[in-house]
Amino acid sequence: MTEDEVDTPALLIDLDALEFNLDTMAAALAGTGTRLRAHAKTHKSPVIAHLQIARGAVGQCVQKVAEAEILAWAGVPDILVSNEVVGADKLARLAALARITHIAVCADDAGQVAALGRAAQEAGITLSVLVEIDVGAGRCGVSPGSPAVVLAQQIAAHPHLRFGGLQAYHGSAQHLRRHEQRHFAIKAAADDTRRTVEQLRQQGLECAIVGGAGTGTFALEAASGIFTEIQAGSYCFMDADYAANLADNGHPVHQFRHALFVLSTVMSAARPGVAVLDVGHKAVAIDSGLPQVWNRPGVTYVGASDEHGTLAITAGAATPRIGEKLRLVPGHCDPTVDRFDWYVGLRRGRVECLWPVAARGGIN
Amino acid sequence: MTEDEVDTPALLIDLDALEFNLDTMAAALAGTGTRLRAHAKTHKSPVIAHLQIARGAVGQCVQKVAEAEILAWAGVPDILVSNEVVGADKLARLAALARITHIAVCADDAGQVAALGRAAQEAGITLSVLVEIDVGAGRCGVSPGSPAVVLAQQIAAHPHLRFGGLQAYHGSAQHLRRHEQRHFAIKAAADDTRRTVEQLRQQGLECAIVGGAGTGTFALEAASGIFTEIQAGSYCFMDADYAANLADNGHPVHQFRHALFVLSTVMSAARPGVAVLDVGHKAVAIDSGLPQVWNRPGVTYVGASDEHGTLAITAGAATPRIGEKLRLVPGHCDPTVDRFDWYVGLRRGRVECLWPVAARGGIN
Repeated sequence: MTEDEVDTPALLIDLDALEFNLDTMAAALAGTGTRLRAHAKTHKSPVIAHLQIARGAVGQCVQKVAEAEILAWAGVPDILVSNEVVGADKLARLAALARITHIAVCADDAGQVAALGRAAQEAGITLSVLVEIDVGAGRCGVSPGSPAVVLAQQIAAHPHLRFGGLQAYHGSAQHLRRHEQRHFAIKAAADDTRRTVEQLRQQGLECAIVGGAGTGTFALEAASGIFTEIQAGSYCFMDADYAANLADNGHPVHQFRHALFVLSTVMSAARPGVAVLDVGHKAVAIDSGLPQVWNRPGVTYVGASDEHGTLAITAGAATPRIGEKLRLVPGHCDPTVDRFDWYVGLRRGRVECLWPVAARGGIN
Repeated sequence: MTEDEVDTPALLIDLDALEFNLDTMAAALAGTGTRLRAHAKTHKSPVIAHLQIARGAVGQCVQKVAEAEILAWAGVPDILVSNEVVGADKLARLAALARITHIAVCADDAGQVAALGRAAQEAGITLSVLVEIDVGAGRCGVSPGSPAVVLAQQIAAHPHLRFGGLQAYHGSAQHLRRHEQRHFAIKAAADDTRRTVEQLRQQGLECAIVGGAGTGTFALEAASGIFTEIQAGSYCFMDADYAANLADNGHPVHQFRHALFVLSTVMSAARPGVAVLDVGHKAVAIDSGLPQVWNRPGVTYVGASDEHGTLAITAGAATPRIGEKLRLVPGHCDPTVDRFDWYVGLRRGRVECLWPVAARGGIN
C-alpha cells in the first residue's frame, strides 16, 4: 500500500527519519558518561522502546502506572515512573510490576513515601524510589537541598524501599527559544542538583540515578557532569514546537528530523482561498500551536475545530483539490499520538508496518 | 463501588443529570414541530443514542463514517452524517451502511456528488444527500440560494441519489455569549435557509430535512419555523464553555445540568498555595478553556500540561490533600470524551454502569 492509499486521519511514522533520530541521539550521548532513558510518554509504544534500548538506552521513563504496565508486559527490562504515583490501587499495581521488571518511582512527600513502603511490603518486594526535586519547572518536587535529603533518608530507612537517586526535570526550560535561555536555566538546575547530590553523599546516600532533561536541553544536562540519565522523549519524532528552538548561532536546531505526521484529506473547498481538511483538534493536538502543512508552500493551517482544519491559501499558491492528501507536522507530538490507536509506518512512500499505540488514552 | 473508589483519571457521568438533560430537551422541543436529531459527536455512545431516541429523537447525527458504522451496528435506525465524506474507501463504507440503516450524508461540491452517485450505484442502493449551505460558520458548505439549488438538482437527477434537504449549521454562533448576538446570527441563518428552501420548492425540490442548530441556539432554530431538525449534542452533558452563555435576562442559561466530569486525584502538594492533579490535557480537552473544579470554592485549575493539572488555592480555602479526589467540569465535552475508552456512570455517588466510548479516537 502506498501513502496515498492510506485512509485519513492517520498517524504516520517516516521510519527512515525515526531511525535517523534514534541513531543521532545514541551518537550524541556516546562518550558523555550519560545514558539515555528515553521517555515513553512520547511514543507509548513497546516497539519503539525496544528500538531505543537496542541502541543503548538504559530503559524507559513513563509518566504513570498504566504506561509502565504496557512496557513491562512487553519485556522492557528497566522502567522509571518519572512522576508521583498516588492511591492504594495504583501503588499495588506498581509494586506488582517489580516481579517482572526493574521498576522505580518518584516521591515528593513523606506521606507518600510511607504509602510506597506499605505497598512494597504487602507485595513482598523492594521498590526503588527517587526523590523528585523542583529545579525550576514549578510543578511537582520538593526543594533541592535539605528537604530532599530528609525524604531520601526516610526512603533509605524503610526495609522495603531503596533510595534510587534524584529526579530533576526542568520541563519549562525545554521550549525556551534562545540557546542562552536554555543554557542559563539548565546551569541553575544542574547547580541545584549537584548541591543536593553532595548533601546526600555527606549523609552516606549515593544516587544511582540522577535523571532529567528533555529534547530541548539534553546536551546541556549531558555536559553538566552531574546527570547520569537523559529522559528525552520527543527527539524520536520531533514536532513543530521543538523545531522552533534556536541553536547558539541563532538558527533553528536541526539535529533531528520530523518523523511523525498526521495524514489528512481535503474534504471541502467551497470558497476561494480556503480549503477544509478532515483533521481537527481531535486528531492533532493544538495545545502547543497549530500543525504545519508539510511541503506545501503558501498553504497554512489556520484554524482547528473538532473534526475540521481550515487552510488558508495565499494568492498564487496551488489550491489543494478535494480528495488530495496532505501531511501535517503536529505542534506537539505526545498528545497527538495519544489521539490514535495505530501508527502507520512508511518507508519511502510505502506502508511497512502497523504498530499499536499501546499505552494511549486517559488511562489510569 | 463508590465514587471515591474509582481510580483516576476517569470520565464520570452523573446519570440523574444526564436523564434530566435528555428529558429537558424532549420537553423543550415538544409542540414546536421540530424534532431532535441529537449529535453523537458529543457522546460517541450507542447507549446514549438509544436513550435519546427513546425520548423522541428522530435519530442521530454523526461527523464521520466510522461514527456512523458504530451507531448502525448498534441498531440506530436513522443516521445523518452532517458533514462531507471524501474518498472512495469511505464512500463505499458509507453506501454499505444503507443496507442496515437509513443513512444520509452532506455534499458541497459537484465532483463529490458524482462520487457519491458512483458509490451508491456500485453498492446498488439509493443514498440520501443533503446540500450543506454556509449560513455563517465559514467552514464547509456552498452559498445559500442558487449554488445550493444547482447542487440539489444534480443530486435529484442521479438515479442512485435522493435529494434529502439542507444542512444549515451555524457553528460559530453557538458560543456567542449574549442572547442578542445569538438571536441575530440565527435570524440571518434562518433567513438564508428559508430563501433557499423556497428557491428549491420553485424547482420542484422539497426538503425532507432542514437541519442545523446546536446547544447554544437550538431554541432559536426551533422557533424559526424553517428548521425541521435540531442537531444539538452537548446539551446531554453540558460543559463550562456552554455554561458561560447568557440568557436574555443577562444571567447564565441554566437549562441543563453538568452531567460529565473528569475525576482527578491530587498527586503533589509540595508548595503552599499550589497542588497538582493527575489530569492534564491528555485527559481533559483545553481547546475551549481550562476545566473548572467542581464544588471547591477557592480552588482553581490554572495550568494543564500533558499529565498534570496545576491548582491555585486562594488564602483561606481548604487545601486539597494528596490522594483527595476532585471532579472537574471540562471546558469542552466532545473532545474530552474522546480521550477515554469508558464512561463510569454514577447515580447518587455509586457506580451503576460502565459504557464504552465506542466511537472515540482519530478514527477514519
